[in-house]
Amino acid sequence: MVEANTLSRDPGVGPAHPGASSWVGPDELARRLRDAYAPIAPHLAEAERVFREELGSRSDYVQRLVDHSARFRGKQLRPALVLLTAQACGGIRPAHPVVAAVVEMIHTATLVHDDILDEADVRRHAATINAEWGNEAAVLLGDYLFTHAFHLAASLESAYACRVIGHATNLVCEGELQQIHHRGDLDLDEPAYYEIVRGKTAELTAVSCRLGAHYAGSGPEACEAFDRFGRDLGVAFQIADDLLDLYGEEAATGKTLGTDLEKQKLTLPVIHLLRSASPGEADRLRSLICSPSPETRRALRPLLESSGALDYAWRRARGFIDSARAELGILPPSPARDTLAGLAQLVVRRCY
Amino acid sequence: MVEANTLSRDPGVGPAHPGASSWVGPDELARRLRDAYAPIAPHLAEAERVFREELGSRSDYVQRLVDHSARFRGKQLRPALVLLTAQACGGIRPAHPVVAAVVEMIHTATLVHDDILDEADVRRHAATINAEWGNEAAVLLGDYLFTHAFHLAASLESAYACRVIGHATNLVCEGELQQIHHRGDLDLDEPAYYEIVRGKTAELTAVSCRLGAHYAGSGPEACEAFDRFGRDLGVAFQIADDLLDLYGEEAATGKTLGTDLEKQKLTLPVIHLLRSASPGEADRLRSLICSPSPETRRALRPLLESSGALDYAWRRARGFIDSARAELGILPPSPARDTLAGLAQLVVRRCY
Repeated sequence: MVEANTLSRDPGVGPAHPGASSWVGPDELARRLRDAYAPIAPHLAEAERVFREELGSRSDYVQRLVDHSARFRGKQLRPALVLLTAQACGGIRPAHPVVAAVVEMIHTATLVHDDILDEADVRRHAATINAEWGNEAAVLLGDYLFTHAFHLAASLESAYACRVIGHATNLVCEGELQQIHHRGDLDLDEPAYYEIVRGKTAELTAVSCRLGAHYAGSGPEACEAFDRFGRDLGVAFQIADDLLDLYGEEAATGKTLGTDLEKQKLTLPVIHLLRSASPGEADRLRSLICSPSPETRRALRPLLESSGALDYAWRRARGFIDSARAELGILPPSPARDTLAGLAQLVVRRCY
Repeated sequence: MVEANTLSRDPGVGPAHPGASSWVGPDELARRLRDAYAPIAPHLAEAERVFREELGSRSDYVQRLVDHSARFRGKQLRPALVLLTAQACGGIRPAHPVVAAVVEMIHTATLVHDDILDEADVRRHAATINAEWGNEAAVLLGDYLFTHAFHLAASLESAYACRVIGHATNLVCEGELQQIHHRGDLDLDEPAYYEIVRGKTAELTAVSCRLGAHYAGSGPEACEAFDRFGRDLGVAFQIADDLLDLYGEEAATGKTLGTDLEKQKLTLPVIHLLRSASPGEADRLRSLICSPSPETRRALRPLLESSGALDYAWRRARGFIDSARAELGILPPSPARDTLAGLAQLVVRRCY
């Protein structure tokens, strides 16, 4: 728990862009996560066992696809949120590893389908399902993961998890649909961006925390607070992810980058840049964004830096993390609470 | 109910191929279904209301996609199976229209995703989602429908529906994955074909009947019998569908045909043709199937007819319907039982 406390004492101001000294690179991030997850390690292992058992198939082919998709799972942020919230709210119970496996399965399903939408070839240093086995296998594997997640959720005694997860995944899909609807929409503003992000990313982190609290026996007030904690953390996470899509190095992130620009998805720094540019500059930017090429990402970077758009986006991400951390005030101090606070901060300090 | 009885008295022997006098064309099929569904009409309407209410979205864009996908729903076979089984097993209860909406939503989700896999442009005389809005929208709309189905299933008091539907949809996805795995596999045999079909089609008709019986208060024995009824009916339905993919007219079916051959998916008549051909003929057939063109379908037809492969497939379909009808013996005679028997027979008599 010492490391977790250390995490939560990190300076609150994150870096402006990769290369700044306070950034956390891949190896350091892995070390910090390992330390943060140490108190829940046996329960994460149990969630992993449930995950694999649920997805077992008699078909070698299906099993191969499932095993491959398991390689995409990296930080295990969502299962960790379930378990750490449970620990902070009174203790981990038998339902928690099942819930943790369910949210991870839904997350994996969305990754597999996202890679089709993004036409991405690489994720976590491995070929995406669509790149290796084609779009059809990727569509069906995603469905397989979704339906197994619900089947597993239905194995819990109450239908609460099914209902809550059903609702959350509806909003995830709606958020993603909104995103493709707004593709190429250069008038997308900040509130509309947040609405998309709250759906496509923050719903699942919110529900992870809510279910962690609920199945630990917390009352409605704490469940709501943890829902907000997870939601703000999820928004910050997505802003960071969008920044990495612009600024990250493919070698470090291990995934195809620049897909937001290629697909003409406007993200926070670009929205801010367009808003703060003079009319003439804005026109030039629009035509750059409308005809995306591998150069676009490189051409935009200096403009994002000099205009302050990059700083603005990081500041907003840190603002969401501050709000998230404030929600933890509902609990008395505990090592688990500190770990959650530290984990939230780490989200906007990773540079991959 | 008179019409329903008429249905069940139709001669048991179906046609060898389209054009035979005992075939039921689009208008006649619509009339017969309307008659068969008359006793459950208010409950089907309630299922429809639940379906639309559950899928309502604040986003115009999402609503437009949902409304469009509703046009693909035609025979409403699965919700009708839920409601007719319920009626035959003791009566329709409040859970039944909800279950009917759930199975129809899952069916619609699989249609939307199937059209991506098949690269189909037209379904029920309307553009497919992928053709009109692109693959990305189609992937996400399918996910939206799947997750709403589970959300709706979780609104029922017991988690039974969630568990059963979760398990069934797992097998549906596994069946579809097996199918793409076997694409181009010219050694696919009849048992492997049935295994795929039992998963991708018959699971959902089986579960429709099982849930109809369960929520009407039937015991395990009747639930199992209705599961088998729905499963055999589903296999027969798929054999008929595969025959229509080879023999149907696009104008009448209102969907893109010939996709099985284009995608090198072997179906029952082709499997039988390959098995019964001489080594020399089989080689010629294999090379024809391996390089599919718009001509392939036309070139195969006379061979399927003269070899008896077409008759064989229809005979097998009727065999499954006979098995399905035999399961109904578990119930005392009733108009609802007759309607189910007639509906089963209609499945192998439709020529679209």
